[in-house]
Amino acid sequence: MDSAKLKALLEAVAAGDLAPDGALERLRGMPFEDLGFAKIDHHRSLRKGYPETIFCAGKTPEQVVQIVERMREHGSNVFGTRCTPEVIDAVLKAYPQAVHHDAARAFTLIVEPPDVLPGYIAVVCAGTSDIPVAEEAVVTCKVLGNRVERIYDVGVAGIHRLITQRERLEGATALIVCAGMEGALPSVVAGLISKPVIGVPTSIGYGASFGGIAALLGMLNSCASGLTVVNIDNGFGAAIAAASINRLVNGK
Amino acid sequence: MDSAKLKALLEAVAAGDLAPDGALERLRGMPFEDLGFAKIDHHRSLRKGYPETIFCAGKTPEQVVQIVERMREHGSNVFGTRCTPEVIDAVLKAYPQAVHHDAARAFTLIVEPPDVLPGYIAVVCAGTSDIPVAEEAVVTCKVLGNRVERIYDVGVAGIHRLITQRERLEGATALIVCAGMEGALPSVVAGLISKPVIGVPTSIGYGASFGGIAALLGMLNSCASGLTVVNIDNGFGAAIAAASINRLVNGK
Amino acid sequence: MDSAKLKALLEAVAAGDLAPDGALERLRGMPFEDLGFAKIDHHRSLRKGYPETIFCAGKTPEQVVQIVERMREHGSNVFGTRCTPEVIDAVLKAYPQAVHHDAARAFTLIVEPPDVLPGYIAVVCAGTSDIPVAEEAVVTCKVLGNRVERIYDVGVAGIHRLITQRERLEGATALIVCAGMEGALPSVVAGLISKPVIGVPTSIGYGASFGGIAALLGMLNSCASGLTVVNIDNGFGAAIAAASINRLVNGK
Amino acid sequence: MDSAKLKALLEAVAAGDLAPDGALERLRGMPFEDLGFAKIDHHRSLRKGYPETIFCAGKTPEQVVQIVERMREHGSNVFGTRCTPEVIDAVLKAYPQAVHHDAARAFTLIVEPPDVLPGYIAVVCAGTSDIPVAEEAVVTCKVLGNRVERIYDVGVAGIHRLITQRERLEGATALIVCAGMEGALPSVVAGLISKPVIGVPTSIGYGASFGGIAALLGMLNSCASGLTVVNIDNGFGAAIAAASINRLVNGK
Amino acid sequence: MDSAKLKALLEAVAAGDLAPDGALERLRGMPFEDLGFAKIDHHRSLRKGYPETIFCAGKTPEQVVQIVERMREHGSNVFGTRCTPEVIDAVLKAYPQAVHHDAARAFTLIVEPPDVLPGYIAVVCAGTSDIPVAEEAVVTCKVLGNRVERIYDVGVAGIHRLITQRERLEGATALIVCAGMEGALPSVVAGLISKPVIGVPTSIGYGASFGGIAALLGMLNSCASGLTVVNIDNGFGAAIAAASINRLVNGK
Amino acid sequence: MDSAKLKALLEAVAAGDLAPDGALERLRGMPFEDLGFAKIDHHRSLRKGYPETIFCAGKTPEQVVQIVERMREHGSNVFGTRCTPEVIDAVLKAYPQAVHHDAARAFTLIVEPPDVLPGYIAVVCAGTSDIPVAEEAVVTCKVLGNRVERIYDVGVAGIHRLITQRERLEGATALIVCAGMEGALPSVVAGLISKPVIGVPTSIGYGASFGGIAALLGMLNSCASGLTVVNIDNGFGAAIAAASINRLVNGK
Amino acid sequence: MDSAKLKALLEAVAAGDLAPDGALERLRGMPFEDLGFAKIDHHRSLRKGYPETIFCAGKTPEQVVQIVERMREHGSNVFGTRCTPEVIDAVLKAYPQAVHHDAARAFTLIVEPPDVLPGYIAVVCAGTSDIPVAEEAVVTCKVLGNRVERIYDVGVAGIHRLITQRERLEGATALIVCAGMEGALPSVVAGLISKPVIGVPTSIGYGASFGGIAALLGMLNSCASGLTVVNIDNGFGAAIAAASINRLVNGK
Amino acid sequence: MDSAKLKALLEAVAAGDLAPDGALERLRGMPFEDLGFAKIDHHRSLRKGYPETIFCAGKTPEQVVQIVERMREHGSNVFGTRCTPEVIDAVLKAYPQAVHHDAARAFTLIVEPPDVLPGYIAVVCAGTSDIPVAEEAVVTCKVLGNRVERIYDVGVAGIHRLITQRERLEGATALIVCAGMEGALPSVVAGLISKPVIGVPTSIGYGASFGGIAALLGMLNSCASGLTVVNIDNGFGAAIAAASINRLVNGK
Repeated sequence: MDSAKLKALLEAVAAGDLAPDGALERLRGMPFEDLGFAKIDHHRSLRKGYPETIFCAGKTPEQVVQIVERMREHGSNVFGTRCTPEVIDAVLKAYPQAVHHDAARAFTLIVEPPDVLPGYIAVVCAGTSDIPVAEEAVVTCKVLGNRVERIYDVGVAGIHRLITQRERLEGATALIVCAGMEGALPSVVAGLISKPVIGVPTSIGYGASFGGIAALLGMLNSCASGLTVVNIDNGFGAAIAAASINRLVNGK
Repeated sequence: MDSAKLKALLEAVAAGDLAPDGALERLRGMPFEDLGFAKIDHHRSLRKGYPETIFCAGKTPEQVVQIVERMREHGSNVFGTRCTPEVIDAVLKAYPQAVHHDAARAFTLIVEPPDVLPGYIAVVCAGTSDIPVAEEAVVTCKVLGNRVERIYDVGVAGIHRLITQRERLEGATALIVCAGMEGALPSVVAGLISKPVIGVPTSIGYGASFGGIAALLGMLNSCASGLTVVNIDNGFGAAIAAASINRLVNGK
Repeated sequence: MDSAKLKALLEAVAAGDLAPDGALERLRGMPFEDLGFAKIDHHRSLRKGYPETIFCAGKTPEQVVQIVERMREHGSNVFGTRCTPEVIDAVLKAYPQAVHHDAARAFTLIVEPPDVLPGYIAVVCAGTSDIPVAEEAVVTCKVLGNRVERIYDVGVAGIHRLITQRERLEGATALIVCAGMEGALPSVVAGLISKPVIGVPTSIGYGASFGGIAALLGMLNSCASGLTVVNIDNGFGAAIAAASINRLVNGK
Repeated sequence: MDSAKLKALLEAVAAGDLAPDGALERLRGMPFEDLGFAKIDHHRSLRKGYPETIFCAGKTPEQVVQIVERMREHGSNVFGTRCTPEVIDAVLKAYPQAVHHDAARAFTLIVEPPDVLPGYIAVVCAGTSDIPVAEEAVVTCKVLGNRVERIYDVGVAGIHRLITQRERLEGATALIVCAGMEGALPSVVAGLISKPVIGVPTSIGYGASFGGIAALLGMLNSCASGLTVVNIDNGFGAAIAAASINRLVNGK
Repeated sequence: MDSAKLKALLEAVAAGDLAPDGALERLRGMPFEDLGFAKIDHHRSLRKGYPETIFCAGKTPEQVVQIVERMREHGSNVFGTRCTPEVIDAVLKAYPQAVHHDAARAFTLIVEPPDVLPGYIAVVCAGTSDIPVAEEAVVTCKVLGNRVERIYDVGVAGIHRLITQRERLEGATALIVCAGMEGALPSVVAGLISKPVIGVPTSIGYGASFGGIAALLGMLNSCASGLTVVNIDNGFGAAIAAASINRLVNGK
Repeated sequence: MDSAKLKALLEAVAAGDLAPDGALERLRGMPFEDLGFAKIDHHRSLRKGYPETIFCAGKTPEQVVQIVERMREHGSNVFGTRCTPEVIDAVLKAYPQAVHHDAARAFTLIVEPPDVLPGYIAVVCAGTSDIPVAEEAVVTCKVLGNRVERIYDVGVAGIHRLITQRERLEGATALIVCAGMEGALPSVVAGLISKPVIGVPTSIGYGASFGGIAALLGMLNSCASGLTVVNIDNGFGAAIAAASINRLVNGK
Repeated sequence: MDSAKLKALLEAVAAGDLAPDGALERLRGMPFEDLGFAKIDHHRSLRKGYPETIFCAGKTPEQVVQIVERMREHGSNVFGTRCTPEVIDAVLKAYPQAVHHDAARAFTLIVEPPDVLPGYIAVVCAGTSDIPVAEEAVVTCKVLGNRVERIYDVGVAGIHRLITQRERLEGATALIVCAGMEGALPSVVAGLISKPVIGVPTSIGYGASFGGIAALLGMLNSCASGLTVVNIDNGFGAAIAAASINRLVNGK
Repeated sequence: MDSAKLKALLEAVAAGDLAPDGALERLRGMPFEDLGFAKIDHHRSLRKGYPETIFCAGKTPEQVVQIVERMREHGSNVFGTRCTPEVIDAVLKAYPQAVHHDAARAFTLIVEPPDVLPGYIAVVCAGTSDIPVAEEAVVTCKVLGNRVERIYDVGVAGIHRLITQRERLEGATALIVCAGMEGALPSVVAGLISKPVIGVPTSIGYGASFGGIAALLGMLNSCASGLTVVNIDNGFGAAIAAASINRLVNGK
């Protein structure tokens, strides 16, 4: 309920069209977000075509399909992440029009495609093993209406390959850089490029990588000030952040 | 050395004005950054008026003054963070025109003030104890040419105060949110506001706060996707990231 | 042996009906709890109808059935938690009258239902993944004779939904709030509600959630003083604590 | 603003005594908590005589005095915890009527003493070193209007002393049990007594006690289900929780 | 080679029965332990009948059988710990006279039974889940020639049961006490009994038990000074230590 | 109250010299330990001449002197560990007959010296830095009536020096081995010697020694089975354990 | 492109055989390493016959075969580590000439065998369980053209066996020493031998070995200064380091 | 005692010049190292002029002077690390000829300078704060007879400066690279240079650097295989390792 509606209600009371008790009741019964706090629910579609998201890890195929169903009733686009093959199978069976994004372990069920923003987000990673995390970022960016440039053939061990990509990197509005092991790639990219860089530590590694802790600490302690970081393997979160920058830059 | 200069050199060789050996020598002797990798040195002033920064923790007053001196020779603005009172005294004695930013434990020595960008960065914190970190962010934003809105009278315990500030929060280009203890404030802000939010865990707390680890983990695991995080107490780094967003939004 | 019995024994000695040696022997042979320390055995039924509990994790189906058998010999109600499907199958086969609480991974075998206390305990959680822990709390509350209100459709991301439940929350005698990831929900509830709140960190999350450590630390460091916490995933323990408050409030 | 006041406002609008615009203005200008979310600010006095609290650690004496001053303007009782001697000196100099609670490292500045509830909270600890934490709990309980029984001469090493206190322990509405090192005391008390027990791990110990982590883990993993736990050294938080139980039991 | 043998060799040289070169050769060829450092090899049988031990975790059935074979060639008794069912099957098939100790996940292959010492070692644990660790201790004690008293029906939750066993506990030469979760049992036993107590933290528990770390820390920080501790789940090591005490007490 | 006293009481009841109510009263009023659980208080003197112990860390000089006073009233020997110079000064001023053990940071106040047992305990350490911990063990052993052999000139780096001490090592009833850094010395000693070895990790080291954690883990994971371990820097606890072995071996 | 080639290109420009634009194009199109930074790509063959390496963990058999194929196109030798049986099967099926190194979980596909250096690297480990890590080191050393001496029959528990191998140990150019549990073996070897020793902590152990952390910390804190360490289970990395020493010693 | 000496002894026995008992006595009385295990004592001078080393941290000035004195009696060069100013003062007062290495927090007392090897070790670090660790490495290298090239003006943030030093880096026999924060410098150097690189994590940093853990983990998980690592701040240990390589390369 924005100020306009609240004023209308008060005017109805003043006009005698609405008894104080009735007004009180209506004020009480109204959904909270109508009182101006809609933004408090960040899962809601902020722009036309934005999807509702399901974090599928730890949910049974039945639960996921049920949630998809509920979302579909509101006409939302639906986006599922961290899907097991069983979840994908169940969703595709129930919704043949859904799309499986294999490398990203995700599915999308798009009714109304989002408007696509100008500019692009660069999604960078070093090797084969980081690709699932990077692809989760890619698909998330896309369902939010962003164009994406994948820059996957770079790694600290072959830093010249990274450097030959400098123009594509610098051309991005924001960069998402995924790295496991010692997690140095985001530091190097942030040192090379003047755009906002979001580091995603991945759980790739062994021994003292501690499931991504070493990479996380490496990024948090980076000398390349200005780098910000999200949770281990959280390609989704990095994409949300990069998309909010891209939207802002494009004045939306 | 950009492509233009490289081509000029090659043309001089073609024209016989420069012998191949001489060209080889010059290619070898040129500073690396001239080959187009200047950006690799992210400490250099990227725009007119940007300062050189000294992380003063663990440096003696003499060392700091010496570094300031060297920077001053290049005519740079100078910005010192994490200063002990002894460092401040030594710098102010050597450079009376330097400015001490008490709450931020910082000093600035500005010769040529930076151009100020339109828009503002909101710097948010909950209580008295987080202010040094927040102020480090504020001063850093300012020396980088950003306007800042301080929103310090808010905390999760009094969430309504935060909500009454929603317009100032939403009006920012980017938000820096500092919080210690369980570190919930950035999550709440990121839930309320659609702009990029950078969380700064602070080392404020005791017992199982483990010097900021609890706050850091709280932010990394936030349900409010899109929040990104920097190192514990790293107001400086958060400001660099926020400034890069603000610059981008303002087309610079 | 309560005071009455001890006095009777002493009177028998005084009356010469029992020789000192015999009395000594009987004092020695009596179970310890008869000497007035019954409470030291907190597993015993403290009120009529309270069940004996089996923590089934790490026990074979055979072991569990054997323990149930022993408990049944004393006529106790039996309550099994952390059951694998195999354990459930074995128990149901041996005791067809046992009830399987699917979502709670638990079974009950109730001979004499507990008296039900007035008032209710609110069990709160945010999403699908926390439900097993929340349901363990629900079933435990119920077998201890408490009524329960489930408030499962709330989460920090949709804080308004929580607020619309404020009356049901405030109406409870005690609240059990389960949350994974950054574990902020108990803080928010404890900030809204003046009743005792018991936080249950769940192991839901990934990466830097470290199997529930982030949620646990978040709750321990909560600004919302007055919140108390139990072990990760310990819905059972939270229910015992909440039940002891409810019993106390109802003067039992 | 409670419902009554809101209804009165609406009635004034209905009666034409207040224009809709004026009503809108007043609704907007009112403190947020007047809209029914007062409870969201858990620091406010929930009952007559409740104090405002200052966590003094990391604050300068000047800052503390300044905050006290602001609170005093609202006529609040004031309660300061984690005070250095310098803070105490500054407060006592500014407010000679303030009371220093030496063992608790706290001060109180009471204008209007709280009503005292019937029943009592037992505060238990083992040795000399845990007393500062226990006393913080004691003073907090008292400023919240609770009577307290100190039971300090007990420890796991002399478990019989604990048992001789069983009646005083059982007579409490709630128990706060402080312990460092392996933190076993709360488990033992929770095993003996049927009342709610809140464990406070203290940072007392050395080596592998890791500043209270061993005690914290010991309490979280206690076999004595029903025990709940607060942060290391958090006597204040335990007291808030115990006081909320005592208030509830006394129907307030 | 003890001094006597060395002297004999030197005398043979002196007598000309052995050439210096031959003596040098024999000195070189002799197993190192013959030079007086036999004790450096603590795996060797220290007394007649002591077994050679195989830690089977992470070894294939083939590897284990091969090692058994090699040991059998020296006529040693053989003792295998941490056996998977596959290892047991392979050993029993190769050596039908081997004995499977089911609860201990161990096997023994005894050619020459050890002399049995007077006195006994008490092996104590609380519940069903700790039994594999306790039984590993029991079997180890036995193959080393110690008598064992199992005291398994005790736990901190039912401390009176422990106390009724006080005489059997006090009668032991040394006690091995296994406990998971908060690991309080060894502390309690060490508080009750004046004999050497060796605590074995077990990995039983969940959440913040961290696979036995909570129990380990609890034991290390025990107020019951005099308690010593071995690695998590290391029933074998505790038994070696207890056996060395029992041997000493019996003058061997 | 031992059985004899309890029988006497019952006989008084039988003889009519004591009314059942009076007997009940006396049974209730008697200190718990009189009921046969004296051992539960492990701080009490177990043998004539055993001292009461004060862990002085974190206690003020005044508190320590006060505790000494109370202990002196019972005629106990007193033993204080972890003393600051201020504590020592205060104790020596109040009790000039007290003895300061400088290297051990301890004092003793002996009224009635303990009987000295035959045999000796070996206290072993590698270097200068471990000596405070080793000396705490030495003084503790002595006040408990044990003879001690110090073997301080050995370290893994000069393992031959250790080996030249093999006879003194093997001659001990029990060995206490203190080591910081990687904590390998106890493993090596336990490998050489067949007597019970108690490892004491010390907090000596830097960097990844983590205040003794590396040494603690090294000892817990030792291949030299049979080694048991106490808390970091806990020379006192190791001595209690070693003394209990020595007492046992000497049939006391 | 080495200097010679660069000079040739410049001479072609000078000679008019190549236009400046064409030269610019060729400079741009050339692989970065040709500009003199070849070393930046440490994965490239540094000497004739050096293999390209694939870290196969977390890659599907299809991905591995695809990468092998790509490498084969450049005529490289190929070396795959951390292979599952499925990966091995797929590679052998696609490349029957590939060799499976069973104990090392590796395969090699050698077209042109490397030149073999004089001298040898000693690879040392204690027991059966460390062999996979040690063998990864062995195979890596060999594909890099080093001879290897395996010394596997040694362990701290049987230190004399180690000492009898002293000549073979001392004869090596560099030593790789693998150990799990407390990780003492590299310290002991580094104490005995004057050659560079590289410690490889293995994840062998249980309980407080924490998957190799105890061994890692033991090696990092070793008193035997001069020992350097690689990641847990990183036999490959240790071999690279040892090979670089061996190459250096042999003047290559 | 080498084989030659042992054979001579045996020949003396054979010749009757030495009685078997006398030979036995001499074998027994000889220092252990004479039996061929001298290397076991790695602190002894391995080559002429090598110093004895004192780790001064945690030692009083008196203790250090006493140890220096003892070493001087054997005519050794003496080298003290981790010195407080008080230690330096005491040593310089006692031995005016001692040299204070200020930046390295070390002193040397050289009687007979070591022979200087050809070749050099490069000691690399990024900034002012890492210099104490780097200088400890430098001084250690020098007292061991190595020439050193300091390369201190390089850091990941200015990677081109590092690259301009490539020839000096590549020219070294071995490299010691010190870095704090995320510890990326050794990875980058190891990627650029084919020589053995030893990484020294420093405790420089704040927040999630955890006193050097982040840097340590970064180095252990480096993609730049072949890098080996020593303990945090252990410049001394890195120098010992580098010196052993340099000695080897120079055939000593």
